[in-house]
Amino acid sequence: MGFTEMLAEAVGRNHSLVCVGLDPDLSRIPTHILRQSRPIFRFNKEIIDATVGFACAYKPQIAYYAAAAAEEQLTMTIDYIHRNYPYIPVILDAKRNDIGSTAAQYAREAFDRYQADAVTVTPYLGGDTLKPFLDYADKGVIILCRTSNPGAGDLQDLIIGEDTLFERVARKAAGPWNYNNNICLVVGATWPEQLKKIRTIVGDMNLLVPGIGAQGGDVGAVMANGLTAGKTGLIINSSRSILYAGEGDNFAQAARAATQKLRDEINAFRH
Amino acid sequence: MGFTEMLAEAVGRNHSLVCVGLDPDLSRIPTHILRQSRPIFRFNKEIIDATVGFACAYKPQIAYYAAAAAEEQLTMTIDYIHRNYPYIPVILDAKRNDIGSTAAQYAREAFDRYQADAVTVTPYLGGDTLKPFLDYADKGVIILCRTSNPGAGDLQDLIIGEDTLFERVARKAAGPWNYNNNICLVVGATWPEQLKKIRTIVGDMNLLVPGIGAQGGDVGAVMANGLTAGKTGLIINSSRSILYAGEGDNFAQAARAATQKLRDEINAFRH
Repeated sequence: MGFTEMLAEAVGRNHSLVCVGLDPDLSRIPTHILRQSRPIFRFNKEIIDATVGFACAYKPQIAYYAAAAAEEQLTMTIDYIHRNYPYIPVILDAKRNDIGSTAAQYAREAFDRYQADAVTVTPYLGGDTLKPFLDYADKGVIILCRTSNPGAGDLQDLIIGEDTLFERVARKAAGPWNYNNNICLVVGATWPEQLKKIRTIVGDMNLLVPGIGAQGGDVGAVMANGLTAGKTGLIINSSRSILYAGEGDNFAQAARAATQKLRDEINAFRH
Repeated sequence: MGFTEMLAEAVGRNHSLVCVGLDPDLSRIPTHILRQSRPIFRFNKEIIDATVGFACAYKPQIAYYAAAAAEEQLTMTIDYIHRNYPYIPVILDAKRNDIGSTAAQYAREAFDRYQADAVTVTPYLGGDTLKPFLDYADKGVIILCRTSNPGAGDLQDLIIGEDTLFERVARKAAGPWNYNNNICLVVGATWPEQLKKIRTIVGDMNLLVPGIGAQGGDVGAVMANGLTAGKTGLIINSSRSILYAGEGDNFAQAARAATQKLRDEINAFRH
């Protein structure tokens, strides 16, 4: 089953558009977990088991694992999800890309080594560098379009004829780049007007939306501007607001409650 | 000693602008090396020892290590260079970036975990996402400007007022982003006209130039368009043409000869 089908199944089964970001910050993991071996995996496992009934996807951000030399625990995390919850897709947030021969190595990293169902990539290098990822037709390739950070507009808002740069990326993603129909785009929750423009350009394409919660994005604005006619098409990520909703022994229960609350808050705009 | 000073020392000491790209492809490593444990490190070690008198930098491309789950051998490679040839800088070619809090993790990966002297990064996300890298004032931050691949122009050539996108990146890199004076740019050898424009914009900034050799870039065109008035300012990378110059037992000797030949070919345009 490919990424698109897995995602649709998880969205339907859990009535959820919530993606749980697995960005384990060792300085914020409870001390009773830190005392154990492989604390990142153990933290993730408890988060996953607690939130899986309310999530449509998990998204580990690889930089947190790489900075901690914890590749093995990333592998264990993804493997744990696939073995126990095979209907939930895993998005490896890696923002990779390079020229073609090296991009092929990054695609191997994401899809063969880590067995991710989708990966995030950067578009700056051009369409030929996306091909090694796109050629994995069953995998999702999630291209940065409008990122959630305050400086996103530095390049993405530059005016090109009638468009901005991010609109150009959206047009290419909805057109020539999407020959395997496996592209999604990253659009920050912090930019509802831009989200609306992108939705107009890309039709029913799935959009990965970070920036809810700690970054200040508003759920209502995302829903008003990003939903498809079928009341879906959004993968709304929350990381810190879920992972660190509680402290100490209580963290997994608090994460579960935060995920359910966000799911329900989102669903209120879908019905 | 910071990256800029290390680079200047290595350039002067070895009279070289050649950067040796350490992109170890397991399918091309000689069989007598593959039979040993940690074959990537052993291959790199022999390449480094053979070429170090003719190089100004080494540039491991992290995707080759990540695809092979060989992070430990990457660490060993960088550590080997630093211990034995402390005047030669190591550029980690990773093309990383993300929003600020995650970019900080990528900076930790490159500079704290791997102890790289410089890292390559992508500019699409905007200036605030570069800050976690740039704040390591002694480290080099090498931003993609004009990449060497055939599709580089898909976004990089888009017209913005009087500029193209890659010129805008060059202007920001030479201006507001460069508050710690530690930025370099990636400019492909395959684009001599664009190299000339970038050199005009950025003054004496060091440019990392991939695309010589296997990708078809011409040394003469690079030198004619990219040299500074001081006959330097270029870090000309070659990977495959050096690593796989020979086969079997002879590979290191062939790599040495290929590096010396490229160094001398480049230097003929400097004197």
